[in-house]
Formats: sequence, C-alpha cells, structure tokens
Amino acid sequence: MSSGKFITFEGGECCGKSTQVKLLREALEKEGVEVVLTREPGGTWLSEQIRTLIKDQDEDAPCDRAELLLFLAARAQLVKNVIKPALARGAWVISDRFSDSTLAYQGYGRGLSLEVISIANDFACEGLKPDLTILLSVDPSVASSRMIGRTAATKVPEDRIERAGGEFHSRLRRGFAEIANAEPWRVVTVDANGTPEKVWEEVWTSLKRIR
Amino acid sequence: MSSGKFITFEGGECCGKSTQVKLLREALEKEGVEVVLTREPGGTWLSEQIRTLIKDQDEDAPCDRAELLLFLAARAQLVKNVIKPALARGAWVISDRFSDSTLAYQGYGRGLSLEVISIANDFACEGLKPDLTILLSVDPSVASSRMIGRTAATKVPEDRIERAGGEFHSRLRRGFAEIANAEPWRVVTVDANGTPEKVWEEVWTSLKRIR
Repeated sequence: MSSGKFITFEGGECCGKSTQVKLLREALEKEGVEVVLTREPGGTWLSEQIRTLIKDQDEDAPCDRAELLLFLAARAQLVKNVIKPALARGAWVISDRFSDSTLAYQGYGRGLSLEVISIANDFACEGLKPDLTILLSVDPSVASSRMIGRTAATKVPEDRIERAGGEFHSRLRRGFAEIANAEPWRVVTVDANGTPEKVWEEVWTSLKRIR
Repeated sequence: MSSGKFITFEGGECCGKSTQVKLLREALEKEGVEVVLTREPGGTWLSEQIRTLIKDQDEDAPCDRAELLLFLAARAQLVKNVIKPALARGAWVISDRFSDSTLAYQGYGRGLSLEVISIANDFACEGLKPDLTILLSVDPSVASSRMIGRTAATKVPEDRIERAGGEFHSRLRRGFAEIANAEPWRVVTVDANGTPEKVWEEVWTSLKRIR
C-alpha cells in the first residue's frame, strides 16, 4: 500500500463512536494494516493540554470563539505531527471526530460563522480532508437514555459540552445532516440506533467505498 | 467620559514597550483615568495557560499554524472578558501587543497567509480595533545589544520566539513598517532608539490624536 487512508467518525453524544472505532481498528489490523487512532481534541502532548483547557474549565471557561480557535489549534498540531506523517508512510488513520464536528458544534450548535469556520479549519488542516467520514446517526431519545446509562456506570460527570441543552443538541443533529447532504461522496450516514454488532455491519460495508 | 479608548503598543523584541506602557499608565492615572493593562498572549486565566503552551514548550512546541490559532484563542478570551467590558465602562485599555503582532510575527515572520490571519483575527476580536497603536521602532543593532544586556541582567533565557534568527526579525521589521504604512490614521511610528525619557515625550505627544 503506497499511501494510507484517512477515516473519520462523527456524530452527536453517545452515538457509539468509540465502539465502532475499536471494531474498525481490530478488523483492519487483522488484515495487516497499520492503524493510527486519534481523538479530537487531543492526540499530541500539546493537543491534550488544549483538550483540558476546552473540556475541564468552569472558572475561566473558553468563550465560543476561543473554544473554536483552541479546537483548531489542537487539530493543526495533530494533522502536522501525527496524521500527515502516518498517511505518508501508508498507515490508515482513524479519527474520533474531526472537522465536521467543528462545523456542527461551533457552527450550527453555537452559531458561529460557518464561512469563517471553513476558512480557519482548512488553514488548520493544511487542506487535508478525510477519504471517508462515517456519520453515526442516533435518535435523540436513544442518545439520551445512553447518556444516563453511561453517567451511572462510569460515575464520570458530563463535561461542559455534553451538558449543553437539548436545543443545542438538535441544532447539532441538523448540522451533521446538512454536512452529510452537502458531501455525499465523502460522508456515509449510518443508522446507529441498533446494537453495536448491527451498526458495525453497516460500518464495515461502507468501507467498500474506499478499498 | 462615556466610553474608553484602546491603545496598543507594538514593535520587535527589546523595543522598550514595557517601559512606555508603564509611563503611559502612570500619566493617565494621574489624570484620574481608569487604566486597564493587558499583555498578549495573556490577561485572563485561560489566556495565561495558553501563553505557557506557546512560549515555554520545547518538547511538543506548537507548529506555526497551531501557534497562530493559540494566539487568537487567547485574544478572543481577552477581548470578550476583559477589554470590551473595560471599554464599555469608560476605562482606557493599554495592551502590550495586539493584532499587529500577529500579522507581523505569524504572517510576515513565519510566512502564514496574511489574508487568513486577517479573517481569523477579526473573528477573534469580534471586529475590535485599537483607537491608537504606537509602533516603537528600534534599529536591529540597538535591539540586539539591549537583548544581550537583558539576558545578562535577568538571567532569564530567551524564549522560543525571541530565539528565532536574524532573518526572521528583519521580516518582522518589514511587516510592522508595512502595517504602519497601510493604516497611518491608526498607527504612529515612534523612534525608540533613544532614552526612555526621549521616547516617552514622543509617545505622550502622539496621544493628542485621540484626546
């Protein structure tokens, strides 16, 4: 394989991304592919520091514009130091969230300019786009009951973004749907209401597009 | 006074900004004006955390694009939480560096797109521009001997940006000069090669523009 593929998973809270990322990694590694997993924001030392500033601050929490710019700073470092080198050596990179989350959360969700976000995001990514984006779509009621279950099981309280209200999350859903409609050649929407096994079948099928 | 004024000081390393900021603050306070001092990057809890990520990291130092976006994130938080509220209550805000430094350092210095920087910077500032910018212009030889003196006196080693080479610093000088030429109604260039007292006379005179 001369050059790698870049696959991103997107979706609202509790859509089951982590599970599907793990299953895809295992399936690809079984075939002998080098897989690099990244998460956003994060994935480099600097980007993880930025993650803490975004997620865990209540005292001087980032304003909407600072939040966006911090996400993009973390992404710039991740693209340059991890994703591009990995793709260049032929690895497959799977990212838990990427640019579409920024458009959905900060653009549709928080109401910041979609145009400015696109320009600044392209700049941060040096133009890199995913070869395939899997949008896991889950009904609000399913997401909500999963969230309650997760908080009870892990005892980890919701973070600042997860706590945003229902109105925010419905704008988010609309945002992801519009992104998927605008770039059907890149984004596959997968119904993620079912069991992990059922969702995984669809995810694996959608990989055919780029193999 | 119904609404405040926003004054920024700009210039290369060792141009004497801190001294002039201090003198201006004292002079304005003597007249009974409320003065708010800010520095960039910094000035809020979040922005100071970001400052540390920009200035003191050698291990996973920000790439050029991440550096720019971190500066803008720090600025967005500072504008929203400190500068705009201060101006609204009639205070004068004096900032040690602001948008022009970003254009000069990251644009002219590091070679990032001036157009993208302008768009992203306007976004970060919510369109806020200084009422007056004082550009302290110092010859490279003077700056260089001041830098040697400062390092010897304070024992504080130069940071990552101060250590950038001479070619970088000459691009920077050109950048500041072009910015000043482009907006003469806002930017006053002050010869900063002389003694602090002599420079201060010129700074104080230039204040007449906005009083």
